[in-house]
Amino acid sequence: MLNNDSIVALATASGTGAIAIIRVSGQDAISIVNTVFKSIKNKDLTKQKSHTLHLGHIVDETKTLDQVLVSVFKGPNSYTGENTVEISCHGSTYIQQQIIQLLLRKGCRMADAGEFTLRAFLNGKLDLSQAEAVADLISSDNEASHQIAMQQMRGGFSNEIAKLREELLNFASLIELELDFAEEDVEFADRSQFNELINRIEFVLKRLVDSFAVGNVIKNGIPVAIVGEPNVGKSTLLNALLNEERAIVSDIAGTTRDTIEDELTIGGIGFRFIDTAGIRDTQDVVESIGIKKTFEKIEQAQVILYLVDGCQLSVDGKLDNLLVEINRTQNQYPQKPILILINKKDLLSDKLLHTIETKLATNNQQLATLFISAKQNVGVEELKNQLLSFVNTGALRNNETIITNTRHYDSLLKALEEIQKVKFGLETSLSSDLMALDIKEALYHFGMITGQVTNDELLGNIFANFCIGK
Amino acid sequence: MLNNDSIVALATASGTGAIAIIRVSGQDAISIVNTVFKSIKNKDLTKQKSHTLHLGHIVDETKTLDQVLVSVFKGPNSYTGENTVEISCHGSTYIQQQIIQLLLRKGCRMADAGEFTLRAFLNGKLDLSQAEAVADLISSDNEASHQIAMQQMRGGFSNEIAKLREELLNFASLIELELDFAEEDVEFADRSQFNELINRIEFVLKRLVDSFAVGNVIKNGIPVAIVGEPNVGKSTLLNALLNEERAIVSDIAGTTRDTIEDELTIGGIGFRFIDTAGIRDTQDVVESIGIKKTFEKIEQAQVILYLVDGCQLSVDGKLDNLLVEINRTQNQYPQKPILILINKKDLLSDKLLHTIETKLATNNQQLATLFISAKQNVGVEELKNQLLSFVNTGALRNNETIITNTRHYDSLLKALEEIQKVKFGLETSLSSDLMALDIKEALYHFGMITGQVTNDELLGNIFANFCIGK
Repeated sequence: MLNNDSIVALATASGTGAIAIIRVSGQDAISIVNTVFKSIKNKDLTKQKSHTLHLGHIVDETKTLDQVLVSVFKGPNSYTGENTVEISCHGSTYIQQQIIQLLLRKGCRMADAGEFTLRAFLNGKLDLSQAEAVADLISSDNEASHQIAMQQMRGGFSNEIAKLREELLNFASLIELELDFAEEDVEFADRSQFNELINRIEFVLKRLVDSFAVGNVIKNGIPVAIVGEPNVGKSTLLNALLNEERAIVSDIAGTTRDTIEDELTIGGIGFRFIDTAGIRDTQDVVESIGIKKTFEKIEQAQVILYLVDGCQLSVDGKLDNLLVEINRTQNQYPQKPILILINKKDLLSDKLLHTIETKLATNNQQLATLFISAKQNVGVEELKNQLLSFVNTGALRNNETIITNTRHYDSLLKALEEIQKVKFGLETSLSSDLMALDIKEALYHFGMITGQVTNDELLGNIFANFCIGK
Repeated sequence: MLNNDSIVALATASGTGAIAIIRVSGQDAISIVNTVFKSIKNKDLTKQKSHTLHLGHIVDETKTLDQVLVSVFKGPNSYTGENTVEISCHGSTYIQQQIIQLLLRKGCRMADAGEFTLRAFLNGKLDLSQAEAVADLISSDNEASHQIAMQQMRGGFSNEIAKLREELLNFASLIELELDFAEEDVEFADRSQFNELINRIEFVLKRLVDSFAVGNVIKNGIPVAIVGEPNVGKSTLLNALLNEERAIVSDIAGTTRDTIEDELTIGGIGFRFIDTAGIRDTQDVVESIGIKKTFEKIEQAQVILYLVDGCQLSVDGKLDNLLVEINRTQNQYPQKPILILINKKDLLSDKLLHTIETKLATNNQQLATLFISAKQNVGVEELKNQLLSFVNTGALRNNETIITNTRHYDSLLKALEEIQKVKFGLETSLSSDLMALDIKEALYHFGMITGQVTNDELLGNIFANFCIGK
């Protein structure tokens, strides 16, 4: 699968910026760029040291395309492990295209998605789970997902797996040895030590498999359904929650703000808010369709927020209707935590406040209720803490390895299954040859994670999800 | 105006890419980055040579933000002329923000729009017109505007101005000298040589001023009104025109294609197509409003394309209506070239073709008519050549300096005015002291272009139009 041809791609975000980086990698990367680069000091790029920068122009025959800064990296001391050149040009899309076109004519080919990182993997610069972490790192948009990706990229996860794999491999070879001396009925592998190792591996695998639930939530954000009629203060609430984070974002001009509309980061964890209408008890056909939709949306959520305009609860029957709605929702989803938010606390009379409190408590003491004023920023901190309490951040805080990748999860599950077979084999004194098969299977799944075992299809799938230029 | 504080900004396009560049410039740039950079080889950034690259991590207290590559440039050998560090990090918006936030806490401040280039200007790395060319270069989206910006950035334009300015300055000091010896009535400045210089300057200024018409068109694209009812084949035509260029664009995955909807590059020149409805002769009030709008749009155009579905011209009276429309448009805009495009040539009978041709020729022999088939790509090359013939590309081909900047145009016009006063003064043997005033004025306007004369407000205006990070 490893090619020696030189690949080129834009490495920075597409569009116009002050500068853009075009990356070229391959055996001939430096010499190809050298044919179109005219150094202001007449330097020959192929004779420059690794990790140096050179000012000059990219020239197409007699036409100057741009003034650029060129970085030279000599393999194996580069990201890909190959000779690499990074051309820092002016950020016009036109210039980016012209330079890439020129390099294509000079013998480069367009890089596939993730091909730079694929080459880094194939050249042994990264193991497979580290390579996958690169893509996670690039798409991380909050502290938690960033922290997990960073840890994985630095090898935290694969080191753990690789160490267990090696220990298991030692025992495997001892057991293979037993098979060679089968007639003599000797045991080279100390069964009690082996038992201890298998238990240890089982423990680690179980922990990693369990961590996926948290990891998945952190990677994709925690879906929260806000049940609330229009004008109860949803936008104000989201803004109040977003307050601090939005300030950070808008500090830096030019960063996109489109995507954070209904996605907030609270305490470094992503939350996705799903807007739903209320769930009134109704005979009306059109309205029942609406309620069906509301339930469908709640289905996707992990937490349900009931946002109510407290002032409206003074209207006769409104509070009772609310209780009916809430009870109906809870019966439908007994597993999902419901948090009732009575908004506009600042406008409520003490008497009304007391009535609401009493009625809610009488209805169901288990239901958490919070009086807030999104506008006055009252109760917003408590709400944040409540939301965070729904996430098991213990593992995150303790810097434990957390699995976020479905592929890793699958391999770990399969490895765990095999390890449990081995364990059962030990308990029932299974013959060495059968046990050896189970161990081999377990080793195979370990290897799938780190990439010691791999195939073209798997690599194709993994790197197709990368962006081009990485 | 020159500050020594260290500024930071994202230099690459905003959004997510494989990598992003964060640029830091200022006296303390290297030492500030050094406090948050942990080299994998324990290097001290402040002790590294200029133009070198270093691998390591950006660390916030105990938390690792990213693995990065850091470029070190020592002033004055950098873009800004100051100490500069470029941090090449993973392209997640989250990581970009975190690193910038960290650097802000460590003593940098957010760069203003264009502040890096402003510093380059203030440090004498670029003159003002070169600095302005940087912004033009970044926003250039076709060959012509790119070529002009590139030439200007490399100093082609300002060299020409600076040379004339110097010669004029020599004469100015000779004439000042005459004033010192006023009683003695001597002439230090040879009037015939001076006359020759003034004529030369006038010639150059006139040429530059004239080039603005072309430059303006090239910078902003040539507006072309397409008068055509729906379904006459406008999209097909635009696609046929765009054919080659779109192929180039889509070769490179990830480049934006939004903006080229109705903007095409033909032969390296940008054309902007303005869609208008037809101009039927009508009594209908609503329709007259539509026609008024059509005329408003045509007003903005430099060229009018009349796109007609040839097949429809077989309908009785349609061809006559068309002639009325065309004549009406031409009477309204006698200066604007009109090109009649009869589309779907492949579907027209020879007889109909002949009828149309005869009728159009009888109506007005001056009007250019082209039979095309956008779908079959018939006549598209001729159309391209016709469109290009509306642009005076002679200057472009001959690599002459072309003015695209309104500010330069204004200064050149004013300088020309002053030079013509000097010329008149020479012809009428005006006294040296009055002539000296005119020369001073001319010198002032020359200086405004290159930035030898400048003020904070002017600089503020110029650099405010830059993007942040440049």
